[in-house]
Amino acid sequence: MTRMRERWKGIFGAGGRSAQEKENTLTAELIAVGTELLLGNIVNTNAAYLARQCASLGLACYYQSVVGDNAARLRNAIAAALKRSDIVILSGGLGPTSDDLTKETAAALMKMPLVMDSRSLERIRRFFENRGLEMTENNRKQALVPQGALVLDNDNGTAPGLILEREGKRVILLPGPPGELCPMFEKSVRPYLSQLCPGIIYSRTVKICGMGESKVASMIQELIDAQSNPTVAPYAKTGEVHLRVTARARDEEEAAGLVGPVVKELEERFRDRVYTTDSDVTLEEAVLHILRENGWKLSTAESCTGGLLGGRLTAAAGASEVYRGGFITYSNKAKRKFLGVDKETLQRFGAVSQETALEMALGAAQRAKTEVSVSVTGIAGPGGGTDEKPVGLVYIGCCVKGHAAAREYRFDGNRAIVRESAVSAALTLVRQCVLERLALERDEVSG
Amino acid sequence: MTRMRERWKGIFGAGGRSAQEKENTLTAELIAVGTELLLGNIVNTNAAYLARQCASLGLACYYQSVVGDNAARLRNAIAAALKRSDIVILSGGLGPTSDDLTKETAAALMKMPLVMDSRSLERIRRFFENRGLEMTENNRKQALVPQGALVLDNDNGTAPGLILEREGKRVILLPGPPGELCPMFEKSVRPYLSQLCPGIIYSRTVKICGMGESKVASMIQELIDAQSNPTVAPYAKTGEVHLRVTARARDEEEAAGLVGPVVKELEERFRDRVYTTDSDVTLEEAVLHILRENGWKLSTAESCTGGLLGGRLTAAAGASEVYRGGFITYSNKAKRKFLGVDKETLQRFGAVSQETALEMALGAAQRAKTEVSVSVTGIAGPGGGTDEKPVGLVYIGCCVKGHAAAREYRFDGNRAIVRESAVSAALTLVRQCVLERLALERDEVSG
Repeated sequence: MTRMRERWKGIFGAGGRSAQEKENTLTAELIAVGTELLLGNIVNTNAAYLARQCASLGLACYYQSVVGDNAARLRNAIAAALKRSDIVILSGGLGPTSDDLTKETAAALMKMPLVMDSRSLERIRRFFENRGLEMTENNRKQALVPQGALVLDNDNGTAPGLILEREGKRVILLPGPPGELCPMFEKSVRPYLSQLCPGIIYSRTVKICGMGESKVASMIQELIDAQSNPTVAPYAKTGEVHLRVTARARDEEEAAGLVGPVVKELEERFRDRVYTTDSDVTLEEAVLHILRENGWKLSTAESCTGGLLGGRLTAAAGASEVYRGGFITYSNKAKRKFLGVDKETLQRFGAVSQETALEMALGAAQRAKTEVSVSVTGIAGPGGGTDEKPVGLVYIGCCVKGHAAAREYRFDGNRAIVRESAVSAALTLVRQCVLERLALERDEVSG
Repeated sequence: MTRMRERWKGIFGAGGRSAQEKENTLTAELIAVGTELLLGNIVNTNAAYLARQCASLGLACYYQSVVGDNAARLRNAIAAALKRSDIVILSGGLGPTSDDLTKETAAALMKMPLVMDSRSLERIRRFFENRGLEMTENNRKQALVPQGALVLDNDNGTAPGLILEREGKRVILLPGPPGELCPMFEKSVRPYLSQLCPGIIYSRTVKICGMGESKVASMIQELIDAQSNPTVAPYAKTGEVHLRVTARARDEEEAAGLVGPVVKELEERFRDRVYTTDSDVTLEEAVLHILRENGWKLSTAESCTGGLLGGRLTAAAGASEVYRGGFITYSNKAKRKFLGVDKETLQRFGAVSQETALEMALGAAQRAKTEVSVSVTGIAGPGGGTDEKPVGLVYIGCCVKGHAAAREYRFDGNRAIVRESAVSAALTLVRQCVLERLALERDEVSG
């Protein structure tokens, strides 16, 4: 790479990195294209996603930027990025309209004329055919690609991704919608970049539920302070904390040898709170896994979360083996009719009460005929709160083989955050109740 | 301003804007400072917030960028921004540690030496005192301000905000945490910028459902081509297209006069497909609104979406007036037991069929006793598809006052996209069926 960079110096400048950095690390830079980003109508989540990906690949990222759909400014932004970085990753501006200029501008800068790519054209045709929609002339434009570019299929939209290489510099063009960008990165860009990066970055994640970030951090402070390789970094998610253990090494074996002992230490410290050490496993998958192993079925009864808990349980394929179904009982009528909650319970204790949560969980388990059930009822806000029962008050009930328990929670935040927190807490409670029940059954057997 | 800019030309360059833009509009540019942004550990929500604020003030924003806590790169980024923009807003890097360099770098570039600000020092002292914490020597650094700068009190943290002015250029420094940045912007920066901006930017959004982006674009191509003030810009969302009509004017009244006729023209072109012209109203709110107006209740029956439709309907507070509840029938057993779907229907046509969707919708309406119900059953993938019934095949049923209909859809994309598309399509279908029914009832009355 060094020689390549020397040759480019005259055209693009040498960049501002140190001699050591130049030897070892490729630099990548992100440019998001879109007027809606400049107007603040959408948040640039692609930048965070791509930055994490680059970091995990060992690419150094020193700049991110956003420009609108304007040829001159876009050209300046790409040219500036090429001067100081080895790889420029652009997202957005690949759409069918005349506003979309990213491909045209990048191709012109890299001196690669646009040609029709018959494979992309055919894919786009099929895309419209499958939807029973008419393909407009606009969409043909999306099949034009810079001559010599690598074309990346888009499995979730029309615009193909593109990789343009020229004298040691690389421009990668990705579609803007995250639902298209992320799968394309995973499938095509990550493998491509992995080949370029010497050495590897390897990480494993210890995922913890039912414990706050400060508490987790305080339990590993001395590990964080002492770290060099591997490093331990906490990431807070709603209702969860993920500890990422990352090592840099020559190969995966060496890296795994560095990371393994730290993961083991973290598992010992957090014990039952650790629901997985597999980066790909989500909390809902961990819950479904325990139930599947024991042949138990699950049902849900939701009030304030309105179906989000069911939605999250079914986000993973294969939930159907375990999750039989659920009841969205948003009204009191539905709580009584769908779940058999007692009218008197609702009148005396209210819909948001431990008693109602218990009856909801029992009703769901009985009616869906499942060993395990979980219920959520609460005040998500913004309205509906009182001094006695403020916004954020949520009761979660769980029933395992006829034994039901319900717990009170108080969440901070807006309606969306309260609901999301309640879903996480419900999953955590199911996991905990099932583990306790299994421990009890083991004790009975051994006793 | 023109004269000011002329004087700066020699130092900072003239930027790439047209003569007309130069006359009327101040330009602002955003720079976020922080390694955690470059690593993708946090999402740059400050940029979206500040961009919206700038747009609403009539400032033109052509660039956003992110740099790390590195003196040379930060200096280059600020210098480049000052060359092309009138106002540079920096966020982050005002903390107490030696990593935090934003203030030092900006002050050096603006040639303003740092001096101790006794008012800020006193405020920081009180901040720690109120919390029973000891103030460290580091925090004294946060009370250093560029000589001659406007100091903005931070009501939610220690670092004061700063406004540096010099020969027509302005650098605004804000703390990075959104909980400090947003209140400070509202209280101090917005009033400051308002005084500088002669006009406003005003926009309205026409939201369209059940029509693809290219089709929408092709129906307004000549409006887009002819636009100057107001402009029309399409934004695609899953199952929806939003057309934003934006005008620049002296005041809101003038802007509304420019935007109104274009919004009316778009409403005439897209008729029933327009579900709202209010930026704040979502598709689910529009659906709930029509039902509420007619005193009708809604229930749901979900298979492949697993509760996401209910979750979306209840995302808005106040859904409880209309949405009675729903059934998540993820298994065939649940479809039969919760909704009374016929065993033979499931065996003969399969769980993913028009017939099952119809019976699910009818069952939900009957059991929840609602005038309107909607059902979703499909193959979200990644597994479970066959040649005859591929991944992405979804049937959506809708029942309005005993009349049920079901429609077939074929969605592309991964599991999450198929499910999200199905939720949007279900909302669109409910809206359409209800509108048709209302038209029929009107015809009957008038006939």
